[in-house]
Amino acid sequence: MCFDHFASSLPKYCLSPSFPLSPHLFRNLGKSGLRVSCLGLGTWVTFGSQISDEMAENVLTIAYENGVNLFDTAEVYASGKAEKTLGNILKSKGWRRSSYVVTTKIYWGGQAETERGLSRKHIIEGLKGSLQRLQLEYVDIVFANRMDANSPMEEIVRAMTYVINQGMAMYWGTSRWSSMEIMEAYSVARQFNLIPPVCEQAEYHMFQREKVETQLPELYHKIGVGAITWSPLACGLITGKYEERVPENCRATMKGYQWLKEKLQSEEGKKQQAKVKELHPIADRLGCTVAQLAIAWCLRSEGVSSVLLGVSSTEQLIENLGSIQVLTQLTPQVVQEIDALLGNKPNTKKESRA
Amino acid sequence: MCFDHFASSLPKYCLSPSFPLSPHLFRNLGKSGLRVSCLGLGTWVTFGSQISDEMAENVLTIAYENGVNLFDTAEVYASGKAEKTLGNILKSKGWRRSSYVVTTKIYWGGQAETERGLSRKHIIEGLKGSLQRLQLEYVDIVFANRMDANSPMEEIVRAMTYVINQGMAMYWGTSRWSSMEIMEAYSVARQFNLIPPVCEQAEYHMFQREKVETQLPELYHKIGVGAITWSPLACGLITGKYEERVPENCRATMKGYQWLKEKLQSEEGKKQQAKVKELHPIADRLGCTVAQLAIAWCLRSEGVSSVLLGVSSTEQLIENLGSIQVLTQLTPQVVQEIDALLGNKPNTKKESRA
Amino acid sequence: MCFDHFASSLPKYCLSPSFPLSPHLFRNLGKSGLRVSCLGLGTWVTFGSQISDEMAENVLTIAYENGVNLFDTAEVYASGKAEKTLGNILKSKGWRRSSYVVTTKIYWGGQAETERGLSRKHIIEGLKGSLQRLQLEYVDIVFANRMDANSPMEEIVRAMTYVINQGMAMYWGTSRWSSMEIMEAYSVARQFNLIPPVCEQAEYHMFQREKVETQLPELYHKIGVGAITWSPLACGLITGKYEERVPENCRATMKGYQWLKEKLQSEEGKKQQAKVKELHPIADRLGCTVAQLAIAWCLRSEGVSSVLLGVSSTEQLIENLGSIQVLTQLTPQVVQEIDALLGNKPNTKKESRA
Amino acid sequence: MCFDHFASSLPKYCLSPSFPLSPHLFRNLGKSGLRVSCLGLGTWVTFGSQISDEMAENVLTIAYENGVNLFDTAEVYASGKAEKTLGNILKSKGWRRSSYVVTTKIYWGGQAETERGLSRKHIIEGLKGSLQRLQLEYVDIVFANRMDANSPMEEIVRAMTYVINQGMAMYWGTSRWSSMEIMEAYSVARQFNLIPPVCEQAEYHMFQREKVETQLPELYHKIGVGAITWSPLACGLITGKYEERVPENCRATMKGYQWLKEKLQSEEGKKQQAKVKELHPIADRLGCTVAQLAIAWCLRSEGVSSVLLGVSSTEQLIENLGSIQVLTQLTPQVVQEIDALLGNKPNTKKESRA
Repeated sequence: MCFDHFASSLPKYCLSPSFPLSPHLFRNLGKSGLRVSCLGLGTWVTFGSQISDEMAENVLTIAYENGVNLFDTAEVYASGKAEKTLGNILKSKGWRRSSYVVTTKIYWGGQAETERGLSRKHIIEGLKGSLQRLQLEYVDIVFANRMDANSPMEEIVRAMTYVINQGMAMYWGTSRWSSMEIMEAYSVARQFNLIPPVCEQAEYHMFQREKVETQLPELYHKIGVGAITWSPLACGLITGKYEERVPENCRATMKGYQWLKEKLQSEEGKKQQAKVKELHPIADRLGCTVAQLAIAWCLRSEGVSSVLLGVSSTEQLIENLGSIQVLTQLTPQVVQEIDALLGNKPNTKKESRA
Repeated sequence: MCFDHFASSLPKYCLSPSFPLSPHLFRNLGKSGLRVSCLGLGTWVTFGSQISDEMAENVLTIAYENGVNLFDTAEVYASGKAEKTLGNILKSKGWRRSSYVVTTKIYWGGQAETERGLSRKHIIEGLKGSLQRLQLEYVDIVFANRMDANSPMEEIVRAMTYVINQGMAMYWGTSRWSSMEIMEAYSVARQFNLIPPVCEQAEYHMFQREKVETQLPELYHKIGVGAITWSPLACGLITGKYEERVPENCRATMKGYQWLKEKLQSEEGKKQQAKVKELHPIADRLGCTVAQLAIAWCLRSEGVSSVLLGVSSTEQLIENLGSIQVLTQLTPQVVQEIDALLGNKPNTKKESRA
Repeated sequence: MCFDHFASSLPKYCLSPSFPLSPHLFRNLGKSGLRVSCLGLGTWVTFGSQISDEMAENVLTIAYENGVNLFDTAEVYASGKAEKTLGNILKSKGWRRSSYVVTTKIYWGGQAETERGLSRKHIIEGLKGSLQRLQLEYVDIVFANRMDANSPMEEIVRAMTYVINQGMAMYWGTSRWSSMEIMEAYSVARQFNLIPPVCEQAEYHMFQREKVETQLPELYHKIGVGAITWSPLACGLITGKYEERVPENCRATMKGYQWLKEKLQSEEGKKQQAKVKELHPIADRLGCTVAQLAIAWCLRSEGVSSVLLGVSSTEQLIENLGSIQVLTQLTPQVVQEIDALLGNKPNTKKESRA
Repeated sequence: MCFDHFASSLPKYCLSPSFPLSPHLFRNLGKSGLRVSCLGLGTWVTFGSQISDEMAENVLTIAYENGVNLFDTAEVYASGKAEKTLGNILKSKGWRRSSYVVTTKIYWGGQAETERGLSRKHIIEGLKGSLQRLQLEYVDIVFANRMDANSPMEEIVRAMTYVINQGMAMYWGTSRWSSMEIMEAYSVARQFNLIPPVCEQAEYHMFQREKVETQLPELYHKIGVGAITWSPLACGLITGKYEERVPENCRATMKGYQWLKEKLQSEEGKKQQAKVKELHPIADRLGCTVAQLAIAWCLRSEGVSSVLLGVSSTEQLIENLGSIQVLTQLTPQVVQEIDALLGNKPNTKKESRA
């Protein structure tokens, strides 16, 4: 059997013998008891917009049947359509609720200026809206999609605790918060006996390392907060598809992604693409693609509980899932070789002079 | 488009280009995360009594379509009919629940002497009654409509925390409490880890300044409590409509408003009407009405989150909403000129002799 | 016997049969258990400066022997000399420590800018200095002599709790703090399980009524804070000694008291002196002096635990102590008559309109 | 008079009219109530080792008489001899205890491996040892000289609270802790109602900016922790004395300071020395030395409560104290010019992409 969700049905897609994710490739989310697959499926840009609902269903099904139990979305993705698409698929599939983990994010929801942020009102109303679109009784983790400087931390943590106590979510987490902000949330939770966050969602890839490699491990050790990371391929940069030129019909030419095109064509963007080229020999040696290498490289990082994949086709998903096998090949020597090539390893050494 | 609630429908009433309220005219309620329009619509005296349900609907619709998101009522207004009227309109309109903020007040509710006050029993039963009349699952803020010396503060704060934790309200506030009483509520909330109040509703206009200008700012700075103010036109006194004589068919001749007539005809009332006359040249210079000037004057005050309007016609509402434009014209010089004219600026100087 | 401190010695001075203070003229300090005489002896301006140490001893002795058990001083009075004088007398007298209550105040102490305020450092060091000068192991109440906006309330309340837990003081209080500040201190004490203040020292006399008559009773009822008041004769204004002109060799001509002279000669000062003249007939009718009437008038106020006397001679003290007998004559009618004369009775009525 | 500690004695050294430190050059330590001079005197390397006890006394006396009230030491400095020297001088001088602030640091104390760290045992025993060497009843601030990963945070914060409640210290702080660690301490203090730290000691100079400029301000705003900084001249690098070559008989050739010599001769060290040369024209224009410019530059930083000076002669101290006058000349333009020259201004921009 190549999956462990169902004991009684055959998967449509069955990958190579190493699939589905072997049991030791489930990880606890931070120090919480929640078990998540180390690869998760994101819906950003894709569900409800870039890909058809049929493709979304195919992608989700393959992921699920190969052991991926973590599906991430947000109220803001495609103005709510990402949640609707995900909800429809989950409903039509009829998978056991306990066999998957759904996470969503609250911040930008309604159209009006007053219907966003991390006020108690928007956290509760926003999550209610998400649950309706998802057709779910609860999500597993509700994330604050960014910090809201205009809402007091006590109000945020009380509201998160409320939605958990109401059964609308199992846990809560943060997305793109600074370590200080997460510690403040923890502090307020301890002071008022509320529920602290269990996870931070952070961008992480070969060209964005600082936070996940230096700050989050400290948070993990101190207060148990885990990391779910996104954009392992740097919005496609690391796939090499932009190496020659920015092709038409890719994300970088989509409406609203002008910034990505500009970034790719910047001085720094060009340097990064040059480094990506240098990754090819390593990937070849390990018998994998550069994308698989880049995803496996994220997984190797201490404190990363899960890496979210963003895919627009079943082929891409299947390729990405292959990164699991690459992980075991990432010996300290290989990791060191990549670090040398990238030249951006953050300094985690502590000063020690008296 | 002159509003931001709907992306897909045309408003019936579209005011001048500066409408609807521009985004910077939303304010956080005190230090809470809740965003409210700086002008709110009150239902006191009007909904369910002075005006027809049709007029109430017209007024509410214009307000909403021009960006007003705060609607205030109370269980006692028109013996519950104000809540019923408001609830019926909200239901028939079908606006998104998250696009507006409904507040009600609990104290006098049932007919019997035992069915009032701030006992746990009446706070919970009273609010349940309000929610039924409003046909809402929850209000955004539930206010204690006055202090109840016969209910212990601990009981009040526990009951308020209970209705919030039950999902019947998002926040709680106080109405016409003394600063001391609000601090006591805060103190009790801190001592027992309950939820502190976020807002005080207070009367505020040119002839009633002390509390809002001297006491509430201190509360705001110390514990984050904001102010929603009412009666910006001093029950009509500042509109100038009583300047010649008390006309028939105005509020001052309504049943139960004998006190207003007496107040207007008192020595002090006459002095105040004389001062209102002196405001005319200033209003003329700014190109606005005295009522608009008086409302804008309330909005200029530090710590005022929203000013509640009480209107009996659409014309009056549209005129009142125009005060927003006047606000930007209230330079320190103009404010100083008005202060000199009124001669009642409260002293906020602290004693300093050793 | 005309005192109750000693069962075995004769008093040097024995006043009329009603002395010493009859037992019911001891009052609890606020809602604390501490019993204080309703008249206390202050040392401001007098001890260590205006009067000789011999006179100070005479005054203190007469006070003590006539039942006064409350002696108030401050580190700043006469740059510490008031405390030294008081301490020397107490030591030489050898009265039981338990038979009197000594209070001091901390804020201005050392000469340097860094050696003042309500930092933990200055509260502890300041009080240590006071205890050395007083030659006492502990004071009964240590007061924060004014608010210090640069010290966080948590630090102040923790330091006050510390000195109490170290046995350096029995209780702590505030002096010239606003009601809001006292409530904040109470709130912090409740939040962190520290010791709240028991008493506020406030100026109170016929021409300064607002705080003691309207704000402190509310604090008393809510959190048990009592009032010790000072300056019952408005720095001598109410004795009538300034009625004709400001005499030489009185406090108003002392170095550093230019402000008092100016106040007396101001428009308001003259009006107040006119009112003092009108008190004479009332005093005559009651068979007492205007000063006695003024002190008794302070004692009649709800929530006043003790009135501090500031005297520079034994005659003055004996006269002042006589105010106790006047107190029983202050019928509601007489109080009303004085209120009418003064015309400054603060409004304590609560608004009650719905 | 050029100081305010003594009213009755003449200072030995009287600097230019702008001395002693003018009152506005005292700062509160973080948000605590403690007032410290913005320049403090460190004893690292100097007291008990590099300089004679006589020179130490001269230096301390000049500092004190010119308004410096902050003296910093550590149990580890010169194996306890720094504390002994400081204690002897303070005792012989007989200055009022309240007129100065003594801080020490605990971590490395005893000779044995078991007699160090931040166990409850070593915090208490270590501080007792320090107090004996200093011949003081208490220090004003006790610092944890580094984090101790082997001691639980709860144990550390409980021990620090204990020594404060025992009267052995007024406040506690951290030295070279990460922001995360400080937040964890704060968190634990709030959870268990213990006393949170008030201050972090951090290295800060033109070539080490990150922590003090980006992390500590956030801590200051969130939890009130202030910064005392050390090494304003980067161990002498910024004085320019190493510009030509490393001279004999300087700190860089002292036993145990091989690392400094190596650092100076490294590639980075040479670049930094080149930048120091470029500072000369700016210093010349402001009429000050490069060292004075560098110290004033530290003082300009938001959240820096005090900068510790390390001097080995009276001339050096007097020169360093002159930096106070330079501070007022550090206009935004000059600061910008220096930033441009250094090219290492930390980025404090927050990410904002949705």
